[in-house]
Amino acid sequence: MLRKLSIATPGQGLFDVTGQINQVVTDAGVSDGLCTVFVQHTSASLVIQENADPSAKRDLEAWLNRLVPEGDALYTHTAEGEDDMPAHVKSALTSTSLGIPVASSRLGLGTWQGIYLWEHRKRGSQRHLLVHVS
Amino acid sequence: MLRKLSIATPGQGLFDVTGQINQVVTDAGVSDGLCTVFVQHTSASLVIQENADPSAKRDLEAWLNRLVPEGDALYTHTAEGEDDMPAHVKSALTSTSLGIPVASSRLGLGTWQGIYLWEHRKRGSQRHLLVHVS
Amino acid sequence: MLRKLSIATPGQGLFDVTGQINQVVTDAGVSDGLCTVFVQHTSASLVIQENADPSAKRDLEAWLNRLVPEGDALYTHTAEGEDDMPAHVKSALTSTSLGIPVASSRLGLGTWQGIYLWEHRKRGSQRHLLVHVS
Repeated sequence: MLRKLSIATPGQGLFDVTGQINQVVTDAGVSDGLCTVFVQHTSASLVIQENADPSAKRDLEAWLNRLVPEGDALYTHTAEGEDDMPAHVKSALTSTSLGIPVASSRLGLGTWQGIYLWEHRKRGSQRHLLVHVS
Repeated sequence: MLRKLSIATPGQGLFDVTGQINQVVTDAGVSDGLCTVFVQHTSASLVIQENADPSAKRDLEAWLNRLVPEGDALYTHTAEGEDDMPAHVKSALTSTSLGIPVASSRLGLGTWQGIYLWEHRKRGSQRHLLVHVS
Repeated sequence: MLRKLSIATPGQGLFDVTGQINQVVTDAGVSDGLCTVFVQHTSASLVIQENADPSAKRDLEAWLNRLVPEGDALYTHTAEGEDDMPAHVKSALTSTSLGIPVASSRLGLGTWQGIYLWEHRKRGSQRHLLVHVS
């Protein structure tokens, strides 16, 4: 089972896509298996993070924004905007793909884990995920 | 084949779980295939690193501790302890899941590669890994 | 289908291996499925990055070289050369494995995505990738 999900992001931030991925797993009808999530972009990425207290994802985003600021004199790739090259670096430091076992027809996430699409561009975008379940 | 492993960590550090994962691969009886390892936590993570000289993993841990120190004024997520938010950041920078091909009924690791569970909390914890082999 | 690819790197840098991986997918004859790429080393890694403008990968490399410089007083693992411990850190911060869905017998990459083998050692090396398609 392979499905493409389209998600419109309003701007930078971490957006919880756990429910949408679990829906694909349910539709696949697989009891025990593997779910692979892949983001088809180099300026957005994936991360599994705490889903209980929103301050955790806010701090994570603030921390990475400080590590990879805009306007770095090192950048030569600037034609697509000030936030483009930081977006590529942030993508490389986080994940483009995630493999999550399926147990009893559900994603085998821990109690406090959520799957987040991390948008690194300020303007947001229409983002595409491929979800494979086997 | 899906199996859950429980590993008690005594505190921060990288703990070699290669033998336990290889045991699951052996039990699965798969000749050529894919092994996916997934950690069900957001304050512990996975990394494949050099298994020959222990100084490599010590330096790696020291390097990441310096990049992501405790007591950062940026953090607002502090209710679970000083080492909690750094643990989330370290998790995001390393891996929550790893996909490792199986060749001739063994993990297809290189000669110097070991699979490590990286505990980021000082107190340690009972950690759970899901291992899927197909 | 499991295949081992050998790639000779001339030195540090990002080397596009998308074509070679797509060839394995073609040979596997799988229509919809999953391709897993695994690098059997701890001083080289994998990353999916922009394939359009070479300045993006140059900036990414320069950024990571600045974050993880040689000659760091923190390092004790120095017997294998000044660029060895930075190589391990860079590996841990990027990826050792990637899972990429296969759609219509091709890697399900986005328009601007390429798969890169990232060599972190100055002297280069003969590097081995395992590619699994199912």
